[in-house]
Amino acid sequence: MSTSLPDYGALGYKEIIATLDGSVVTVVINRAKYRNTFGGVLDKELINVFQLCDRDDRVRVVILTAEHTAPAYCSGADLTNGWNLLWLEESEKEGEHAHRDSGGQVSLAIMNCRKITIAAINGHAAGVGMTALQLPFDFRFVWAGARLTFPFVRRGIAPEGHSKASYLMLSGAVVSPDSKHISDLYHEIIPTREAVYPTAKAFAEELAANTSQVAVAYTKGLLQHPGDSIEENHLLDSRAIKLLGSSADGHEGVQSFKERRLPKFTGTLSKDSSPWFPWWKRVDVSHYKTKL
Amino acid sequence: MSTSLPDYGALGYKEIIATLDGSVVTVVINRAKYRNTFGGVLDKELINVFQLCDRDDRVRVVILTAEHTAPAYCSGADLTNGWNLLWLEESEKEGEHAHRDSGGQVSLAIMNCRKITIAAINGHAAGVGMTALQLPFDFRFVWAGARLTFPFVRRGIAPEGHSKASYLMLSGAVVSPDSKHISDLYHEIIPTREAVYPTAKAFAEELAANTSQVAVAYTKGLLQHPGDSIEENHLLDSRAIKLLGSSADGHEGVQSFKERRLPKFTGTLSKDSSPWFPWWKRVDVSHYKTKL
Amino acid sequence: MSTSLPDYGALGYKEIIATLDGSVVTVVINRAKYRNTFGGVLDKELINVFQLCDRDDRVRVVILTAEHTAPAYCSGADLTNGWNLLWLEESEKEGEHAHRDSGGQVSLAIMNCRKITIAAINGHAAGVGMTALQLPFDFRFVWAGARLTFPFVRRGIAPEGHSKASYLMLSGAVVSPDSKHISDLYHEIIPTREAVYPTAKAFAEELAANTSQVAVAYTKGLLQHPGDSIEENHLLDSRAIKLLGSSADGHEGVQSFKERRLPKFTGTLSKDSSPWFPWWKRVDVSHYKTKL
Repeated sequence: MSTSLPDYGALGYKEIIATLDGSVVTVVINRAKYRNTFGGVLDKELINVFQLCDRDDRVRVVILTAEHTAPAYCSGADLTNGWNLLWLEESEKEGEHAHRDSGGQVSLAIMNCRKITIAAINGHAAGVGMTALQLPFDFRFVWAGARLTFPFVRRGIAPEGHSKASYLMLSGAVVSPDSKHISDLYHEIIPTREAVYPTAKAFAEELAANTSQVAVAYTKGLLQHPGDSIEENHLLDSRAIKLLGSSADGHEGVQSFKERRLPKFTGTLSKDSSPWFPWWKRVDVSHYKTKL
Repeated sequence: MSTSLPDYGALGYKEIIATLDGSVVTVVINRAKYRNTFGGVLDKELINVFQLCDRDDRVRVVILTAEHTAPAYCSGADLTNGWNLLWLEESEKEGEHAHRDSGGQVSLAIMNCRKITIAAINGHAAGVGMTALQLPFDFRFVWAGARLTFPFVRRGIAPEGHSKASYLMLSGAVVSPDSKHISDLYHEIIPTREAVYPTAKAFAEELAANTSQVAVAYTKGLLQHPGDSIEENHLLDSRAIKLLGSSADGHEGVQSFKERRLPKFTGTLSKDSSPWFPWWKRVDVSHYKTKL
Repeated sequence: MSTSLPDYGALGYKEIIATLDGSVVTVVINRAKYRNTFGGVLDKELINVFQLCDRDDRVRVVILTAEHTAPAYCSGADLTNGWNLLWLEESEKEGEHAHRDSGGQVSLAIMNCRKITIAAINGHAAGVGMTALQLPFDFRFVWAGARLTFPFVRRGIAPEGHSKASYLMLSGAVVSPDSKHISDLYHEIIPTREAVYPTAKAFAEELAANTSQVAVAYTKGLLQHPGDSIEENHLLDSRAIKLLGSSADGHEGVQSFKERRLPKFTGTLSKDSSPWFPWWKRVDVSHYKTKL
């Protein structure tokens, strides 16, 4: 998988800027002149970069952020030409059931990335800037002054975005991060816009240095894809523990603990993950014929 | 469906008072002389009015409340003759599995109502006054002085009511709305009893004026009936977005946004909803022979 | 089931001390010289005592706690010999899929106990001391000074423990009970170590005196094993209500309420539970051949 290592700065992205620093990739939304709306090729580039980070063994954490001087973190869908209802030409011929929302496609790419993902929300956010660009992340750091809204029902449309989203979606209200209706979503609320990304970066670096890549991937799997019963959970986590406990990273975890030092984990998803992982069915629904 | 429009004031209800004002229906529990217990024909009248509101295109929001001078919002089941264990005579002959709890029947009618539902809890609440008359609503406004309790295990019985209910059900404790064990349930906690309904009404009117009836119904569907996986969610919300984005309400949502004005949504569930909606199986379990 | 009543003090436990007082069993972790690590026969003794309490009609509440002078409530897995990856010799031959994590086995025993379960966490907790020894309980009381952590990804391993666990599992951070990331887990946060158990005990005694054993078991069942849809929930809770409402405890619940006195419930799981309960499939996954 990692035979040809991508040079993130040289991938020719137009609407994002991606940089690898140590084992942390930072992705900056680069559409400030369009108020960082979700439009153009932003969707395709985000899908691409999260898929690359998923496969690149050098990467342990991915941060999505914006310029803190931009008008917004993401001000929602680009409505210049109305709702973006074209995904593939073939899907149009197939019928309405073959439509794939581009926000949902981005969400899936982020959720399927086996590395730790962090959103550093250093500006206002609306619509898909709340759903696809926040909800699928493992951790969210936010500017205290951000105005946040899921305005879908006030625009005659329904949200994409994956469950657990609160009934804020039904009211379309504008709230602050410290609102009781949304504060649980955020790992940390930060007073100034310019401090959001550095805080997230420091958090990312500490995690990148001291966590096992394979243990993180398995733990994300257990959190996102638990079994259908407590017994099935038990069979899944027992197997994960057996595999990891017998691995080099599992031994290093014990050894560093006994020697009271920080761990040095060398395991990677390419060489140290069992064929059993992922244990759930991963369906590529981007093709217009895919049905479940 | 909406060929004959109901005159809510002339439906002959005995234990509720229903009024249509603009596109907001207010339902007042009218059993103050019985401490607003859940008894008599209250269950059947509540089921009836929520089913009517579901079908009546004029209605966008339904509020349930009580007189703020009543002894309680709802003080629980009427225990004069013990637990209400008779639903239909036929079900008695069929056996215990054919029993249908009346609180559960009311809950289903509220949850199946495709309009925005609000509970304005301006007094104390216990038992079924917590479960059926609060949990199924989209938004709950509550008086700060309300005493709230799920006393089931202290009365030798189990709760009806649909999941997500906290372990307050296991202790049967009496709590205030600002208790950490229950405060998340409430959209707003209001200092005085008399202000609860006006606050809920103002909230309802703003939503009624500025949200799309069809978008609300689809969004409620996505929140209550998500898919079994993130891929299935994506297929569902993509289709909802395609349908709504191509509709008159979808266009008006974009247009009003561009013109920086409030929207005027004209779409209704009778004429503008796709046969695809609802996408989940709706089972009428009120018949005693119905099995799943 | 309850034909031979266990004498908890005479069961020969080595690493726990169990005491029956009225209808409350207290289980004290007794490995202070090993910093209360999860090792030795602690797993087997915990499984045994929770299975006994499940069947013993005299027991209404079970509390797990530690000496408040111990180095920790539970400081995690005993790592003296690395990760504990041996469950049964046969399972080793069968293959990695036959491994059963011992923390998971303890979790299942606690979750399957039909009585009210309380963890009184009067010291620090890490790893399996957070997962198996806290998450499966109905109520958790905690010392405000406790240092709490899920360090799995920092030890090269994945957590056992059953869902709902937060993304603290992904960061492995050390937090205090009042951290916004974990405070919801706790019923009450208590200033001093020595007051944690007495507070939990008083709470347990009040519940033991005033709740119905059968109603508690059915309510736990409805919370842990709801139906797959709101209709299925309704059929389940209707049946539970019919059964309980017709029972002696159901009558006593109504009678004591009318007479404004505390209830005296005499129903027990051995003699008053319907063969319909439990309505879900209980799978014993401790055998190495068990598959789902």
